[in-house]
Amino acid sequence: MSKVAIVYHSGFGHTDRLARDVAQGVADAGGLPDLLRIEPQQSDFGEFFDRIADADAIIFGSPTYMGTVSAPMKAFMDASARPYFVKAWKDKLGAAFTVSGSPSGDKLNTLTSLAIFAAQHGMLWIGTGQAPGNNDDHSAATDAENRLGSFIGAMAQAANESPDVTPGSGDRASARALGGRVAVAAARWRRGESEALRAPALIG
Amino acid sequence: MSKVAIVYHSGFGHTDRLARDVAQGVADAGGLPDLLRIEPQQSDFGEFFDRIADADAIIFGSPTYMGTVSAPMKAFMDASARPYFVKAWKDKLGAAFTVSGSPSGDKLNTLTSLAIFAAQHGMLWIGTGQAPGNNDDHSAATDAENRLGSFIGAMAQAANESPDVTPGSGDRASARALGGRVAVAAARWRRGESEALRAPALIG
Amino acid sequence: MSKVAIVYHSGFGHTDRLARDVAQGVADAGGLPDLLRIEPQQSDFGEFFDRIADADAIIFGSPTYMGTVSAPMKAFMDASARPYFVKAWKDKLGAAFTVSGSPSGDKLNTLTSLAIFAAQHGMLWIGTGQAPGNNDDHSAATDAENRLGSFIGAMAQAANESPDVTPGSGDRASARALGGRVAVAAARWRRGESEALRAPALIG
Amino acid sequence: MSKVAIVYHSGFGHTDRLARDVAQGVADAGGLPDLLRIEPQQSDFGEFFDRIADADAIIFGSPTYMGTVSAPMKAFMDASARPYFVKAWKDKLGAAFTVSGSPSGDKLNTLTSLAIFAAQHGMLWIGTGQAPGNNDDHSAATDAENRLGSFIGAMAQAANESPDVTPGSGDRASARALGGRVAVAAARWRRGESEALRAPALIG
Repeated sequence: MSKVAIVYHSGFGHTDRLARDVAQGVADAGGLPDLLRIEPQQSDFGEFFDRIADADAIIFGSPTYMGTVSAPMKAFMDASARPYFVKAWKDKLGAAFTVSGSPSGDKLNTLTSLAIFAAQHGMLWIGTGQAPGNNDDHSAATDAENRLGSFIGAMAQAANESPDVTPGSGDRASARALGGRVAVAAARWRRGESEALRAPALIG
Repeated sequence: MSKVAIVYHSGFGHTDRLARDVAQGVADAGGLPDLLRIEPQQSDFGEFFDRIADADAIIFGSPTYMGTVSAPMKAFMDASARPYFVKAWKDKLGAAFTVSGSPSGDKLNTLTSLAIFAAQHGMLWIGTGQAPGNNDDHSAATDAENRLGSFIGAMAQAANESPDVTPGSGDRASARALGGRVAVAAARWRRGESEALRAPALIG
Repeated sequence: MSKVAIVYHSGFGHTDRLARDVAQGVADAGGLPDLLRIEPQQSDFGEFFDRIADADAIIFGSPTYMGTVSAPMKAFMDASARPYFVKAWKDKLGAAFTVSGSPSGDKLNTLTSLAIFAAQHGMLWIGTGQAPGNNDDHSAATDAENRLGSFIGAMAQAANESPDVTPGSGDRASARALGGRVAVAAARWRRGESEALRAPALIG
Repeated sequence: MSKVAIVYHSGFGHTDRLARDVAQGVADAGGLPDLLRIEPQQSDFGEFFDRIADADAIIFGSPTYMGTVSAPMKAFMDASARPYFVKAWKDKLGAAFTVSGSPSGDKLNTLTSLAIFAAQHGMLWIGTGQAPGNNDDHSAATDAENRLGSFIGAMAQAANESPDVTPGSGDRASARALGGRVAVAAARWRRGESEALRAPALIG
């Protein structure tokens, strides 16, 4: 069984709604999800780092605010310089999801920024692995998984309504699928582990 | 009157459809558009560079293929090392539009890659300047300008149909608005020109 | 005379050192710099927004931390949703500079994220406009401006030493050049202003 | 033993020099490298796709030209729509290296564009896993691995000289280390493979 930490910030509950969908996907695939929600002014992430320590994978979740990850998510990222310096997350798997008000917006920059961040930690990155769900008409208003067409991470669109009703079913299914994909990949990655990978000359 | 070159590649006619909308927007705003369509295996861009030479602005258009600009657009970009080395496009305005099959996809990477490219040429960059057109429901199926929510350039979504029917009216209006915005800004930028800007110590 | 706001966060003084170099460049070019330093836990940016209100240009400065802008810079960016919703920064010029410990690192992502952010505000973007300063050997250890080779914004490298001695003279000259370029461009942009640009149909 | 395809374009021989260093790193780590060099006007990649078919990992190499991958590399990427549509590269590992004339330049955009591209294929991404090699002074002129400070892929700087003498030893060692890291990770990933990962409900 793989352990998957889900570290996220949610401003109005939409990212939280998706984080729990991601967690459901992890559990459905036989993994053990651990939800870690970042608080608005949080500056101490010691407990987070403790709980992440033995995770096989970390899935990062953030709304897209003003072009990239939210400030509270960035506070977590900056604080992670501590585990970075001791290579604590090296060779873990990483993935991400994000949500904003528009179908596209600048969500891709949030996801690539998280992939760049994870690379600094020496993590491997896994995306949605899904074909676009809706290229057949001008609409994005379907229940199809990956209806927005995202690959390096999962995207969702939230209207100005309660997280009870938005994001819609397609985006929530995309989040669940991401959780499942990460859990399965993390189990495979763990199974394949051997001393060989840890030889310093090989992994830099 | 500002002169605006529109350099684009179109695989199946959708980018061409948008390029002509952009040109219409330029003309409606009192500018002079010059459409330059890149052919699939084109390697000689001498005439393009001649026609771009006295343009106040260049608007780049490309489908998003496999994560960024199409190969023919990239061939044009690489060939532009020639004007780059003589700073021929320095201080011109730049802008971009792109189209792909999904609401989001990786269109943002196409636009930022074009902005990065234009910055190497020493160009200034101008985006859509538009608020997102459709954040009120889960759908992107409206006629609203900027319905996909893009800022650093204009985005469109094309279904697997003829350019006669796709992209839809909202995306085409976004392209037209971009053309208008660039034409007006280029006229303003030209009006403001003085010898001061050309002082070598100031502009690097 | 153009007014140029310089909004920045500095963790250990290196970004502050560069911000003052940028301000010097603005002043040398006849502009009026206004230095606005973000404090670590700052959440109220009301005074910043007031002082930015009549600026012709905003230059953003941030260290690159864990792959992109620092958390305090991001707090400022998120807070700027307030001026964003009333389009307070629309059609201002924007630019950026960043610093980190490596010659390259992920500094480009900091700069493009700030360009994407500024585009959401409807700002125009201006880069270094400089040729790379040092492509002649494997070293980056020269005093040349733009020795690291950056275009969409200015880059600097800081060693683990006091801001009194690092970044070096080439990087500091790059920052000064950016300030000068922005000041001159902002003056030109202001001179060219007319009612035409403000016609709603044209600027989206 | 893992099989690692190395697909690259080289304009003046510097990327080729690095590709062979990457291959050496693969071989040193017990992997089987397969060098596939893209020709300038190449449009038929059928043999490439055949040889990539049974590779465990693909390492992409491209010079950074005008802000991102070179046009011949992009031609390969666009042609890969064929394997993409049949998910031929899904769940392979991906990695990248790039070279340009400046210490930084826009190399990061080349690497992130390749990571975004690989994500569309459903590939997992692996970076350098190395700490920055040279943050102790203003120079980048050392023999240290990862002296430029790159994580999502390997970076090198080439002077205007023969590939016999540039890039320097530190950058070449970085390329070799990347090859080794990918080979070892690909072997681990292969060892962990099971039917579970292929359950359609889990991997999207």
